[in-house]
Amino acid sequence: MGMESSVFRVESMTVPGGAEAIVRGGRDLFPLLPSALHGVERIGVLGWGPQGRAQALNLRDSLAGSGITVAVGLRPGSRSLDDARANGFNEDDGTLGDWLEIAASADLVILLIADAALAAHHEEIFAVLKPGATIGLSHGFLLGYLRELGRDFPAGHPVIAVCPKGMGDSVRRLYVQGATVNGAGINASIAVHADPDGHGTDRALAWSIALGSPYTFATTLSAEYHSDIVGERAILLGAVHGLVEALYRYFRIAGADPVTAYERSTETITGPIARTISKHGIPAVRAASGDSDLFDRAYSAAYRPARDLVAEIYDEVADGTELRSVILAEQRLANRPMTQIGGSPMWSHSPTVHARRSTPYRTVRYGGGSGDARGGGASGAAAGGGAGIDAVTAGVFVGTMMGQVDEFVVRGHAWSEIVNESVIEAVDSLLPYMHARDVAYMVDNCSRTARLGARRWGPRFQAVYEQIALPQLDQPADAQLIKEFLANPAHEALAAAAELRPSVDISV
Amino acid sequence: MGMESSVFRVESMTVPGGAEAIVRGGRDLFPLLPSALHGVERIGVLGWGPQGRAQALNLRDSLAGSGITVAVGLRPGSRSLDDARANGFNEDDGTLGDWLEIAASADLVILLIADAALAAHHEEIFAVLKPGATIGLSHGFLLGYLRELGRDFPAGHPVIAVCPKGMGDSVRRLYVQGATVNGAGINASIAVHADPDGHGTDRALAWSIALGSPYTFATTLSAEYHSDIVGERAILLGAVHGLVEALYRYFRIAGADPVTAYERSTETITGPIARTISKHGIPAVRAASGDSDLFDRAYSAAYRPARDLVAEIYDEVADGTELRSVILAEQRLANRPMTQIGGSPMWSHSPTVHARRSTPYRTVRYGGGSGDARGGGASGAAAGGGAGIDAVTAGVFVGTMMGQVDEFVVRGHAWSEIVNESVIEAVDSLLPYMHARDVAYMVDNCSRTARLGARRWGPRFQAVYEQIALPQLDQPADAQLIKEFLANPAHEALAAAAELRPSVDISV
Repeated sequence: MGMESSVFRVESMTVPGGAEAIVRGGRDLFPLLPSALHGVERIGVLGWGPQGRAQALNLRDSLAGSGITVAVGLRPGSRSLDDARANGFNEDDGTLGDWLEIAASADLVILLIADAALAAHHEEIFAVLKPGATIGLSHGFLLGYLRELGRDFPAGHPVIAVCPKGMGDSVRRLYVQGATVNGAGINASIAVHADPDGHGTDRALAWSIALGSPYTFATTLSAEYHSDIVGERAILLGAVHGLVEALYRYFRIAGADPVTAYERSTETITGPIARTISKHGIPAVRAASGDSDLFDRAYSAAYRPARDLVAEIYDEVADGTELRSVILAEQRLANRPMTQIGGSPMWSHSPTVHARRSTPYRTVRYGGGSGDARGGGASGAAAGGGAGIDAVTAGVFVGTMMGQVDEFVVRGHAWSEIVNESVIEAVDSLLPYMHARDVAYMVDNCSRTARLGARRWGPRFQAVYEQIALPQLDQPADAQLIKEFLANPAHEALAAAAELRPSVDISV
Repeated sequence: MGMESSVFRVESMTVPGGAEAIVRGGRDLFPLLPSALHGVERIGVLGWGPQGRAQALNLRDSLAGSGITVAVGLRPGSRSLDDARANGFNEDDGTLGDWLEIAASADLVILLIADAALAAHHEEIFAVLKPGATIGLSHGFLLGYLRELGRDFPAGHPVIAVCPKGMGDSVRRLYVQGATVNGAGINASIAVHADPDGHGTDRALAWSIALGSPYTFATTLSAEYHSDIVGERAILLGAVHGLVEALYRYFRIAGADPVTAYERSTETITGPIARTISKHGIPAVRAASGDSDLFDRAYSAAYRPARDLVAEIYDEVADGTELRSVILAEQRLANRPMTQIGGSPMWSHSPTVHARRSTPYRTVRYGGGSGDARGGGASGAAAGGGAGIDAVTAGVFVGTMMGQVDEFVVRGHAWSEIVNESVIEAVDSLLPYMHARDVAYMVDNCSRTARLGARRWGPRFQAVYEQIALPQLDQPADAQLIKEFLANPAHEALAAAAELRPSVDISV
C-alpha cells in the first residue's frame, strides 16, 4: 500500500514482487511530532490495560516538552486508578479523569478500553467528542463490531489506527530499552479509515513513531482486523497452546517424564525456536533441529491441516461469525465466569522447567528419536537441563507458521503485515513473554477477545495435530513442500523487515 | 405442547411439572394412515442417504396395499441409484426418478437430501411443487438456513416435520425388528410449521407412525432445530468424541496399555454405560460403576464446565453463528476436502478391543484407582477381556449428559424432546452404532452438518475435560450437585418415555 506524508520520509522497502511504503522510526524524529499531529494539543488515552498503559507512557515520554498533553481516562470505579497515579497521571493537572471527560477534552481520543467495553460504550464516547476530534484505535475490533450491526463511525471525525505488532507489555519495555538501543521497539501498522481533513496519515505516523515503532507500514482497518484476529487465534497464541497440549501428551505417552515432555513441547518453542527465528530466520530452525529429515516429516504432516484450520478461522473472522461468537461469549460471562486453562497438568511443571534453565537458549539437540507415540522411542532429555530444539516440535510449529503466512498471502495481505503478524510478533513479543511466564498464563491473562479466541481455536489445533499431523510422522516428507518452504518469499520479506529493526533481547 | 388429531388417539404422558401430549405408534394403526394423510396419494422421498433410505423403505412397507405410492427422487448422477433399485424402487413404475420430477409429482415431498444440497437447491424444488403439496422435513436445518437469509417457506404449502430421534440406520433396523417386537422403533417429534389446510398434524402423525415411531411428541421446528443441532454437537456425538480422546490419553499417561485405555475410555461408554442407562436409567450407572465416590468426584468435576460448553453451543446455534460456520465450511470443502479424524492412534486398537468382547456388556468393574494422570495409579484392566464401567469415565460422561439435560430445561424444551435428544437417542441409537463400528467411524460417516459440528466442538469438550475436569478429580465431590443429580426430574421423564417404548437390543 502507498503512504504519503508531509512530515516524515516515506521509504520503499523491497519485498517479494515489489515494494512497500514504510516509515522508519527513531527518537531523532520526536521533534517533528507536534507538527505531524496537526493541531492535536491534547491526547486522551482511554483505558489502562497493557496497551493503554504502554501507549500513554510512551506518548507522554515522546512528547515531553512539546506542550502536547497526554491524559488518561478511566471508567468510574476503575481498579487501574492507583497504578495510573503511581505512573504520574493525576486528577489535579487534568491528566487523569473519567473517561467521558477525558474523551470530551481531547483532540485525539485513543480507544484502548477492552473490546466488550468498546462494544457497550462506544456510542457514549462518540457523543461527547469535540467536533473534528480524531478517533484513534489500535485494532480493528470496533470496525468489525459496527459492521456486524450495520453501523459506522460518526461522520466528520478522522478515524485512524496505529496497531503495534506486539503486546502492550512489549511496547513499553522495548521503548524503554530503545533509549539505549536506538531502534528497539515494536513495529506498527497504520490505517486511515476516515480522513476528512487530510491529515490522518501524518497523525497516525506521529503516534506510531511516538510509541517507538522501528518501522511503520500501511494497511486498512479491515485488513488489520482480519490479520490481527486470525493471527492471535492461530500462530500467535491459539495454535501454540494447542500445539504444546498435543505434544506434551504425545511425548508423555511415548515415555518421556513430565519435565522432558514439557521441554520438548513448550520450552523448545518459547526458547530456542523463537530465538533462532528472531536472529537467523525461519529456515535456520530446520538446520538447528539437528534432524532435518524428522523436521521435514513433521513439517509435511502439519502444514496442510494447520493451514486448512487457518483458512477456516479466516473465513469465520471475515464473515463476522467469530465476532458474533465473541459477543455471545461476553453475554454469557456475566453468569458463567471464564475458567482458567492453566489447570492442565503440564503447567504444574513450569517452575521445575524454568529452574533447569542453566544458560538461556543453550544449544541442546534431542536425539533423532521420532517420539512416535505408537511405538515408544521418546529419547533425549537434554543433559544437564535446559531445552534444545526438538525436531518434531520444530517441524510442526514452523509448518503451522508457514501455513498462516501462505494463507495470508492468498488473502491479499501486504508482506509487512504478513511477517509482522505471523512471525515477528510471535518471536519478538509473545513467545519471549510465554517463555518468562508460561503459555497457560499468557492465554489466561491476555485480552478477552484474544483469550476467547485461543480457547475457541487452540483445541482445534490440538485435535488437528493429534488426529492428523502426528499420526503421519512416519510418512516420508513431501519434498516439494519442503522446497517451497525453503524458497518461500516470506524469508526475503522477513529479512527486509529485520534490516529496519535491530533484534533485541526483550526484557520480560 | 398440545396436539390434536381427528384420526389418532392423543394421550397424555405425565412428565415433571405436568403432562405432554403424545401419540403411541404401532402396526395396528397402519390401516388409519391413508385417511390421516388427507389426500396424499403419492409421497416423494428426495435423497437416499441413511434417513432417506430408511424412511422410503419404512413408508413403503407401512403403506403397502393402501394405494399410496412411495417414490424416491435422486439427483442426476446420484451414486445411490443402484442401491435404490436393489431395494425395489425403479424408474419403470415411476417409483424412482429425478428429484425434481419426483418432487413435481408428489403430494407430500420429504426433503432428505444433504443439508448442503438443501441449501443450494431448495428453491428449484419449491418451484416445481404441485399447488398445496406438503413440504416434509426431518430436521430444522432448512428453517435455520432460510432465517439466516431472511426468507421463508413458500406460501400455500403445508410445512411439516417428522424428526426421528435416531440415525437412519436405526430407524430402519428397529422398524424391521418391530415386525416381531411390537413397539420397537425410534421415537420421533413432529412439528407443524405451516398448516394452510388444517391437516398438518394428522399427516405428520401418519408419517411418524408409518416410520415405526413407538411414540410421537410435538415440538416446533425451531425447538427441534435447536435441540437437534446442539445435541449432536454435545452428548450425542461431539462430547463423546472429545471425552474418549481426552480419557484415552489420560489413562495412557497414567500407565495403562493402549487396549486398557481404550476400554476404560470408549468401550465403557458405548457398551455397558449405554446399556445400563437404556435398561435401568441414568442413576443406575453410578451404582454399577462400583465406586460411587469416584463417580461423584468425576461427575462434580465435569458437570459445570461441560454444561457451560453446551450453553455456548446453544447460544451459537440459536444465534445462527453455527449455521454460518457450516455454510462457510461447505464452501471451503470444494477446495479442501475434510480430513478424517480416524487417524488418531487410539482407533488402531478398535479391532483388538472388539475381539476381546467375550460376552457383550459383561459386568466388569475397574478397581477404585483414580487413574490420576499426575500420580499414576491406573489400575484394573478387566480380567479376561471385555470392558466394565469405569467410574471416572462414567462420572464425566453422565455429568455431561446431565449438563445438557439441565441446559435444555432452562432453554424451555419439552421433556420428551429433552430426554429423547439427550438420552434415548444416545443410548438406543448412536452409542450402540459406535459400539459396533467405533466413535471415529461414526464421526467420519455421519451427516455433513453433524460431522462439521463434531469436529468443531469435540475438541472443545476434550480441552474442557483435560484442562478443567480431570485435574479436579482429586477434589471432593459436590454433595449438593450429586443430590440434584439423583433427584433430577429427567429420570422421571425418562421412565415415562420408557413405558411407551420397549427397550430393544438394536441390531447393528
